[in-house]
Amino acid sequence: MEQTAQEFNLIDDYFKPLSQPLSAGDLGIGDDGAVLSVPVDHQLVVVTDTLVAGVHFPLFASPYDIGWKALAVNLSDLAAMGAKPGFYSLALTLPQNDQAWLSDFARGMRDLAAQYAMPLIGGDTTKGPLTITVTAQGWVARGQALLRSGAAIGDLICVTGVLGEGALGLKLALPAQPMTLNDRACNTLSDAEKAHALNALNRPVPQLHLGQHLFGMAQAGIDISDGLLADFGHVLNASSARLNQPLTATIKMEQLPISTAMQRYIAQTDDWSLVLSGGDDYQLCLSVAPEQWPRLTSLAHTLGVTVTAIGQVTLAKDEKEGDRQRDRLSGIELQKDGIVYQPANLKTGFSHF
Amino acid sequence: MEQTAQEFNLIDDYFKPLSQPLSAGDLGIGDDGAVLSVPVDHQLVVVTDTLVAGVHFPLFASPYDIGWKALAVNLSDLAAMGAKPGFYSLALTLPQNDQAWLSDFARGMRDLAAQYAMPLIGGDTTKGPLTITVTAQGWVARGQALLRSGAAIGDLICVTGVLGEGALGLKLALPAQPMTLNDRACNTLSDAEKAHALNALNRPVPQLHLGQHLFGMAQAGIDISDGLLADFGHVLNASSARLNQPLTATIKMEQLPISTAMQRYIAQTDDWSLVLSGGDDYQLCLSVAPEQWPRLTSLAHTLGVTVTAIGQVTLAKDEKEGDRQRDRLSGIELQKDGIVYQPANLKTGFSHF
Repeated sequence: MEQTAQEFNLIDDYFKPLSQPLSAGDLGIGDDGAVLSVPVDHQLVVVTDTLVAGVHFPLFASPYDIGWKALAVNLSDLAAMGAKPGFYSLALTLPQNDQAWLSDFARGMRDLAAQYAMPLIGGDTTKGPLTITVTAQGWVARGQALLRSGAAIGDLICVTGVLGEGALGLKLALPAQPMTLNDRACNTLSDAEKAHALNALNRPVPQLHLGQHLFGMAQAGIDISDGLLADFGHVLNASSARLNQPLTATIKMEQLPISTAMQRYIAQTDDWSLVLSGGDDYQLCLSVAPEQWPRLTSLAHTLGVTVTAIGQVTLAKDEKEGDRQRDRLSGIELQKDGIVYQPANLKTGFSHF
Repeated sequence: MEQTAQEFNLIDDYFKPLSQPLSAGDLGIGDDGAVLSVPVDHQLVVVTDTLVAGVHFPLFASPYDIGWKALAVNLSDLAAMGAKPGFYSLALTLPQNDQAWLSDFARGMRDLAAQYAMPLIGGDTTKGPLTITVTAQGWVARGQALLRSGAAIGDLICVTGVLGEGALGLKLALPAQPMTLNDRACNTLSDAEKAHALNALNRPVPQLHLGQHLFGMAQAGIDISDGLLADFGHVLNASSARLNQPLTATIKMEQLPISTAMQRYIAQTDDWSLVLSGGDDYQLCLSVAPEQWPRLTSLAHTLGVTVTAIGQVTLAKDEKEGDRQRDRLSGIELQKDGIVYQPANLKTGFSHF
């Protein structure tokens, strides 16, 4: 971490307190780089995610939440790789040296990192438009990373937690101007339901405790940060390429795990887009061989995580369907009570451009 | 690396070609994270540096140069840690999907990475004001990282290459408005001299080939990215703290390695600030026990790198001097022909805030 005198104070005051614990002989913040140990016979897992003000969070978001979320979205990627948490670095570009903002931002990051004993090991602070990049690292036993490419025909598709809460939170935080009928439907939610959805948006809890035990139980995994259909589409694409076989999937709408607030919202609007293609969920979507299912549910129960089977991986009926799916990241068949279902106005995922 | 359909194309087109070479069983771009091997009995070295448009490079800088430099400043930190090059990830925030810009940017990054066979292993692309964060990783044999804290009384202070060329390049690229007498002095440089200085600014060459062999030859090291005095001040601070002894240093002005262009510039202006406190040098400043000096110069000769001894680490005359120095990152004594020298108008380093 390069430092000038002013940066030194900023780093000493706000970020040095986040630099524990470190293994003996390792070095965190304070030199040109950090020096870290990786367990023997393990591979390093590296993930990077950037949050831009006004793009990935509202300009009025609280600094505590921004700090929490900047780390959480990265830990969710580590979880999706089946990795144990290691350490993280922070590249923080901010318009001015705002002490109160920095203190709250660092506190949000610290409170999440502390749950996994992850130290901040370095980074860079620069002046400019508010942009936060976290690079997080963890490790897996050699050859045991959970990849997107491991799904096979007959696998159960399952998800952790509930779907669409983050997107519901975003609708509450940033309703369209002027408000649409769907936005108005949110008015019927209770304060507790609103708070729950906003919390899912602002302080997502990565599934790291479950993720690091998934090897041998899940064949493939991904985190649902860009929406269920788009993200599981990546799993189908990668797995189709590996097997050289056109995979697709069937998802049963009535099995999708959603909150009672979301049930009411959908009853009023028939809008499934938050559940199927809303971003910001940070749950895991896994492809699980049916014989692994009992072990997985038992593990999840032990950890206090809900997992729900929502569908199955199938062989695409013909090459054309497989091709279409690989091209368009869709082609997943939705069924409602056994009948093919086509929701209205469905986007296939959050677009960064 | 999280991807939507649009990101996929961007990554496939410009960044996938940068993802080689990888070791067998490792995984680069294309999943939620990368999976990488670190050699047995080694520690990982992690560095992060951010470049912000308009702060760290002029808005009109060429995308090729921006790509090159974004990686180079990180590799310079790896070199200063004595690390062997490993791999890097890229967090790129850019205002729009500009194909020509991206192509040139990726080419600049690729041309530098190829010199060290470093693969790009992942990252994130987001929309927003142009900001580039690279996290680079390498490794050192366990316990053999080159730290700032290893300097001792009597060590020779030495630097690689020539000093101040990057700062001279910056003066040429961004003269003050209206131009100062010092800016006008640059008009007397030849076209070749100007090109050399601009090249030092835009395409710095990190000292990775030398850096990774310094263990046992240098006691402490740092890269001069914020100016010689400020950066060697960090070495003195860290080493004073380790030894619990107030260290300072004497630097002999007549030994500072500078180009003939810089000699002429100083002859006209008496402005030593580019050499002593200009940023953007990306050379190494090392603290070397005198008995190690012959081995170091021999190694540097073999690698075609110039190293020059410019001064010596000394004991601060009294505690007060040590305290003053630790507080102000200065107190280094400059001598010219054996007499204490005080240059006019010297800043003590580049400030990010």
